[in-house]
Amino acid sequence: MTPTGAEASRGLGAPPLVEPRATLVPAEETGARLRGLQAVLAGAGLDAAVIVQNADLYYYSGTIQASYLYVPVAGEATLFVRKLAARARLESPLEAVVELAGLRELPGQIGARYGAPPRRVGLELDVLPVAHFRRLEKLFPEAAFTDLGRDIVRQRAVKSPWEVERIRAAAGIAVEVDRLIPGLLREGLSEAEFAGLVEAEARRLGHEGIIRMRGFNQEMFYGQLLSGVSGWAASYLDTPLAGTGLSPAVGQGVSYKPIRRGEQVVFDFVPVREGYIADFTRIFSLGEPVPALRRAYAAALRIQADVAAAARPGVSCRALYELALAGAADEGLAESFMGHGAAQVRFIGHGVGLELDELPVLAGSDLELAEGMVFALEPKFVLPGLGAIGIENTWLVTAAGLTVLTEAPEHIRVVG
Amino acid sequence: MTPTGAEASRGLGAPPLVEPRATLVPAEETGARLRGLQAVLAGAGLDAAVIVQNADLYYYSGTIQASYLYVPVAGEATLFVRKLAARARLESPLEAVVELAGLRELPGQIGARYGAPPRRVGLELDVLPVAHFRRLEKLFPEAAFTDLGRDIVRQRAVKSPWEVERIRAAAGIAVEVDRLIPGLLREGLSEAEFAGLVEAEARRLGHEGIIRMRGFNQEMFYGQLLSGVSGWAASYLDTPLAGTGLSPAVGQGVSYKPIRRGEQVVFDFVPVREGYIADFTRIFSLGEPVPALRRAYAAALRIQADVAAAARPGVSCRALYELALAGAADEGLAESFMGHGAAQVRFIGHGVGLELDELPVLAGSDLELAEGMVFALEPKFVLPGLGAIGIENTWLVTAAGLTVLTEAPEHIRVVG
Repeated sequence: MTPTGAEASRGLGAPPLVEPRATLVPAEETGARLRGLQAVLAGAGLDAAVIVQNADLYYYSGTIQASYLYVPVAGEATLFVRKLAARARLESPLEAVVELAGLRELPGQIGARYGAPPRRVGLELDVLPVAHFRRLEKLFPEAAFTDLGRDIVRQRAVKSPWEVERIRAAAGIAVEVDRLIPGLLREGLSEAEFAGLVEAEARRLGHEGIIRMRGFNQEMFYGQLLSGVSGWAASYLDTPLAGTGLSPAVGQGVSYKPIRRGEQVVFDFVPVREGYIADFTRIFSLGEPVPALRRAYAAALRIQADVAAAARPGVSCRALYELALAGAADEGLAESFMGHGAAQVRFIGHGVGLELDELPVLAGSDLELAEGMVFALEPKFVLPGLGAIGIENTWLVTAAGLTVLTEAPEHIRVVG
Repeated sequence: MTPTGAEASRGLGAPPLVEPRATLVPAEETGARLRGLQAVLAGAGLDAAVIVQNADLYYYSGTIQASYLYVPVAGEATLFVRKLAARARLESPLEAVVELAGLRELPGQIGARYGAPPRRVGLELDVLPVAHFRRLEKLFPEAAFTDLGRDIVRQRAVKSPWEVERIRAAAGIAVEVDRLIPGLLREGLSEAEFAGLVEAEARRLGHEGIIRMRGFNQEMFYGQLLSGVSGWAASYLDTPLAGTGLSPAVGQGVSYKPIRRGEQVVFDFVPVREGYIADFTRIFSLGEPVPALRRAYAAALRIQADVAAAARPGVSCRALYELALAGAADEGLAESFMGHGAAQVRFIGHGVGLELDELPVLAGSDLELAEGMVFALEPKFVLPGLGAIGIENTWLVTAAGLTVLTEAPEHIRVVG
C-alpha cells in the first residue's frame, strides 16, 4: 500500500509536512526509475549521474529539496540535501538521505560513500545554467560531463500505472471545472475576471498552481482562457493559441477584454495534481457561434478522431502529424491549422507528466508511440478576425490503442 | 507621453495585442537601460552582449519574444526575432527588429548588420542552460564568452521612476486584496479554498499570474497563505515561511488544512502588474491570537521600524541585517527569527522588480543601498507548534531614506 502523508508525519510532533490527500511516491516507483536511469548510465559508459532539477528530483527521489541526487551506475543512490533534510526524510522513499552543509562538501561526501570520485558524469545540461555547471566542473576537476537531458526526458515519457493514476486525478480537476463553467460564464465579465472565478474552483479542487515546463523561457499560468478575437493573438510561446496577456510583460493568456455575446470562449486548461499535469480544451459560447467557427470545430473533432484511431504503439509521431495536416488540408483549413500564418506551430500534441512540454511531441519526428506514453492531442484552428477554436484531450497509449483521460462533453456548449 | 497599447495597435486590423490598461515600455527607458549595459560592456572590454532570458529581454527591449537581443558596445541594438516579429514591432520601442528564421542565421545576420562577428561576448550565464550555451559557442567559434548575469542584476536593482510607478501599481493589488480579506475569510475554509477566493480578486484587479524568479529551481505561486501551524513547515525554498503545499511535488504554499478559530492567517502575497512585482505580508486572525504570537508580531514591527529608520543610500546590507538580528536577540527570539532552527534563512529582505529574487539582498553583504533600489523587508518569526507571524512591506530607497510602496494597516486584524 502506498503510504499517505498523514502516516508519514504521524507522531513527529511536527506540522503535517505531507497532506493526507497526497500520497508519497512509493519505493517501487523510485526504485524502477533509478534502475532505468542506471541502465542509461551503463549504456553510455558513465560512472554516475548528478540530478539537480526540481521535476527530475521529484521523479527519482520523491521529494523536492535543495539537493543533489547522486546515482551511481550500480548500487544505491544518495540524496545529498542542503535544505531541508528532515523534510526529505519524511517524503522520500530513498534510504540514503544525507545532510550537506554546502555544495563544496559534495565531492568529499561522495568519496566517503562511494570511494573514488566519478570520472564520467551525466548531468541535466538541457536545463542546468552554465554558472552552476562551472561550479560543478571546479569541484570535480577530473570528471568529464555528458548531457543526460534527452535520456531523462525519454525515460519520463513512459508512465507507470501509478503515474497515470495521478494524471487522471489532475484531469479530474479540468473535467469538474468544465462542468461548472456554464454557471460561472456571463456576458461582460473580463477574461481576467472569468479566469479568476474558474481558477478559484480549480484551487478548491486541489489544483497545485505551479505548472512546470522544461524549455528555457517557457512559462504558463493555468493555460489560456480566450474569448472571441483574443484567440487570434499569437506569441513567442510554442503554442497554437496564446492570447494577448494583461501586458507585454506577460504576452500570453487572459486580457482585460470583456467576454461578449456571440463569442466563443476557449477553455484551454492545464490541471496539476501531485505534480502531474494534464491538458484539456473545450469550447463554450455566449449564444450561437458563427458558421465558420462551427465548421472549423467540426474539422478539429474529425482530425482528433482520425489521429486517435490511428495511434497505437509503434506508430511514429510523424505519421500522426501528417495525418492531421492532411485532414486540415482536406477541410480547406491548412492555413489556419495550429495557428495562422507566421504564427503556426509545427506539432499537434505533446507529452504531459511532471512537465507540460514532455515527449512524445506529435510533430515531424521519428519517435514511435509506446505503451504508457501520455500525451495531449490538440487540433486547433485560428481564424483571422474570429479567434481560435479546437479540442484537446489527454490520452494514454495502451497496447490496444488510445484511452482518453479527460472524458467530458465535446460539443460546443452554448450558454445564456 | 507613454504610448498605450490601444494606440500601438490602432488601425492594424489585428487583435489588440497590447491591452489599453498596460503601457508600452517608453523608448527613453530602453534607451537608458541599453546605455547602462553598454557602459558595462565597455568596462569589461566586451564587444557585445546577447540577451536571451525573458525578464532581461523585457527590460532591455520592451517585449518578450523568442528572440536574441544583440547589444554592441556602441551603436544601435538589434532584436533578432524567431517568433513573433510582428508582435515585437508593436510592443518594442527599438527601431531595429529583424526576423530570424532560426538560430543558425544569427551569426550571418549580425555580420550583415555590424560587420565582423564579435570576439568577446557577454551572456546571461547565470540562467542560460549549458546545452543552449554550447549551440552559441558553435555558432561563434572565434568568440570568448563572459558572464554578465551579475552586472545585469546590479543594473536592474536600481529602478527608474517609470519602474517604481509600476511596482506601486502592483503593490496596489496587494493592498486592495488585503482590504477585501475580512469579507472572504471564514472558519472551516481550507487554505486552498481561501487562496482561490483571494486569487480570484487579485485576477480581477489585474494580477498577471506568472511570478518570475531568477534562481535555478526557484518557484512561487502567489506567495504563501498559511494558517496556524502550517507556517511552521519549511521547505527547500530560500524563504522564511513555506507551508506544506498540496503534495510533496510542490512542497510549498497552501494545504488542504481547514482554517480554524484562534489561528493566525499569514497573508504573504506577491502581486504582479506589467511584469513588476511587489511583496507584502499581513496577519489576520479568526479570534484573538495567543500571547506568544502577539509578542513575536510586536517584535517584527519593532525590527521593521528600526531597519526602515536606519536604511538610506550608502548603508550596507550587512549593517541592516545585523541590526535586525540584534533586534530579534534583544527580544529573546533569535532562534525563531526568519525561520526556526535548521530552516532559518540568512536574510531579512530582497530586491523586487521584474523578478522576485533581485538585489539588494538584505543579508551579510557589502552591497550598499542606492537611491532607486526597491526591496521587500520581511522580519518574520516561526514558533514551533504555533506557526509563523511577521510583516512585510516593499520599500523604495530615496535620498531621504525609505518610502513605503505597500501602505496598508499593520495591526493584526481579528476577524469573526
